[in-house]
Order: sequence, then C-alpha cells, then structure tokens
Amino acid sequence: MARRSDHSREELREMALSAAEQIVLEQGYEGLSARKVAAAIGYTVGTLYLVFENIDDLILNVNARTLDRLHAQMEALQASSADSRDYLERLGEVYIRFADEDPHRWALVFEHRLADGRTVPAWYQEKITRMFAMVEDGLAPLARQRPQEDITEAARAIWGGVHGICILALSNSLGVAGVDSVQKLTRSLISNYLQGFTSE
Amino acid sequence: MARRSDHSREELREMALSAAEQIVLEQGYEGLSARKVAAAIGYTVGTLYLVFENIDDLILNVNARTLDRLHAQMEALQASSADSRDYLERLGEVYIRFADEDPHRWALVFEHRLADGRTVPAWYQEKITRMFAMVEDGLAPLARQRPQEDITEAARAIWGGVHGICILALSNSLGVAGVDSVQKLTRSLISNYLQGFTSE
Repeated sequence: MARRSDHSREELREMALSAAEQIVLEQGYEGLSARKVAAAIGYTVGTLYLVFENIDDLILNVNARTLDRLHAQMEALQASSADSRDYLERLGEVYIRFADEDPHRWALVFEHRLADGRTVPAWYQEKITRMFAMVEDGLAPLARQRPQEDITEAARAIWGGVHGICILALSNSLGVAGVDSVQKLTRSLISNYLQGFTSE
Repeated sequence: MARRSDHSREELREMALSAAEQIVLEQGYEGLSARKVAAAIGYTVGTLYLVFENIDDLILNVNARTLDRLHAQMEALQASSADSRDYLERLGEVYIRFADEDPHRWALVFEHRLADGRTVPAWYQEKITRMFAMVEDGLAPLARQRPQEDITEAARAIWGGVHGICILALSNSLGVAGVDSVQKLTRSLISNYLQGFTSE
C-alpha cells in the first residue's frame, strides 16, 4: 500500500482534528478512536501519533477548538450587548444554543477524563480560565463594591448553574421539553442570581 | 452445573439490585452488565431476566434506590431545618455531599440513557417529581405572592444549578478543588437566587 506523505505536519494536524470533529459530530464521543481518525485522513495510526502525543492530546485539541468557537460567540455577544446585565443574561442563551446545536462536541469537553495521573496542560487550562474571565468581565461593573474573590465565585456559580440546567434539560431530567423552556430556566437562574448578588 | 433455586422472586430481585449497586459503587457505570450481576448472585442471566425486563429496567431500579436514599436525606433535612430558607440553603449541601460520597451511583442516575424510543416509566418519573416537590415545598412559603408556575420554575432552576456546579466541580472543570469550595459555590448560588426570587 502506498503511503501518502504529501502533507506537512501542520496540514496533517488540521486534517486529523477536522476528521475527529466530524466523527464526534456524527457518532458522539464513543465513536472516536485513533484508528477511525487515521482511516478518515488516509494515514496510519503511527503517523497520527507523530502529530499528537496520544488520544488524550488529540481529544484536548478537539475540545480546545470547541471552546474557541464558544469563546468567539461570547465575544460577539459582549460586543453587541447593551450593558453588562444584558450581556450576562444573554450569555446563558448563547451557552444553551451552543450545547443544543452541537451536543456531542459540547459533551466531549466535560465528559472526557484524562488518564489517571495526567493533568490538564497549561495551554488548555488557559482556555477554561479565559471563559470564566468573560463572565467576570460582565459581573465586575455590576458589583463594584465587591472584592475580586466574590466576582470569581459568582462567575463559577453562574457558569456551573447554567451548565447544570443545560445537562439536565438536554437529558430530559428536568421535566421540561424544548430549548425555549430551557432558555426560560436559564434566564430565571441568571436574573435572580444577579438581583441577589448586586443588591447587597 | 446445579442451578440454585432456593430464592423467591422478591429475594432474587433484592439480591440482584444489591449486587448491581455494589458493582456500580466499585467499578462505575461501565462495569455494570447483566452477566456480572448474574454471576455475583450465582444465577444465570436468564434467571435475572425473569425478574427484570431488561438491563434498562435493572438500571432504573438501581437508580430508583439511589433517588430514595437522596429523598430520605432531604426529608430528614426538612424535618431538622429552622425555616424554609435554612432548609433550601442546606439542600445544596446535602446534594453535594451525596454526590461526593457516592459519585458512581449518583452519576448513573443522570448518565443512563434509555434505548431509543423507550420512555421513562411513570413510577420512576414519580420519583423525580417527588424531589422537585420537596424543593417547591421550601420555596412556596418564601414567595407567597408568586403563582405556582414560578415556584415550579425556580425549583428546577435551583436544582439544575446545584447539579451543574456539582458536575463541573467533581470533574475539576471549575478551577476549584475540594468539597468545601463546592459547598461555598452552591451556597452562593442558592442564597443569591433566593434573594432575587423573593424580593420581587
């Protein structure tokens, strides 16, 4: 069998990530394997592992692209929002829509567990921190009297809260059906939280 | 091989559920199979399926027992709480502790998906509804001017919110470590939400 070798390392990387994303999109997390990704791009698993350290590394890079897409949507929202409150309330909507439109790749971000003993690399942790920072940016002008510690905590509480509603709703565990009802719950969570958080 | 037949249907059912619970406790969701449960109780898979319709039915019954344990803790908390607000704020703690102490069985409740086309049976749905009802019971006295619809929505927003913090924290996605920090986030979520919800 002739082995293709007409791609640069960077091209190989891009092809592999796109193929992996497509597999997750269509078949979910369980469908993803190094063998399938290699087959999809016409290379061997050995070549794949010249570009990625291991399957965890490949998955982290897929997840990084998912986080980048979400981050881009959050930035666009921030730019188009009337004020901080409007921005934060609509952040929930963006998150729910994102999860609803791309459930498999969204789920991969938080369902994937590194092998025991491995820790998330700094470049990936930075992508998570950057998302929280965007929520903190929205909160800070609403609670100027609060220390940074409170802002950090609130960003995590809101993010976790929206995430949980999203998960339970998409798995039909909240007794609510449809994205509209989920959006309503998310708005309820964020607006009541903000009212409490900013009133003290 | 001599087949044991010295147990009643009810005893078999109890043995199988206990064995399944033990397997999930030790090995997680992925470790559970009809074959393993049957082996653990010394019967064949065929006998197991005289007592349970299929593996989904077995898992739903395991999950029902998990929900019963959580419900019992919620009832004890309600009985020992000073007032509704105290009760609701401590509900979050109970939930986090429950998930932290028994992560595999807790996860099985929401990670298990029925085969396509199957719906959750009414007896199981009732166990979910009963949990939300306990949150609604706590909310109602705090917001007497609110229609039932708002109480229902708030119960789901709070539950989903606590659940999300719990998931993200236990999977180390919130940048917080330790059950104490998670408890703090949960208290932040519930108390700020309640302040917003009851102030209108």
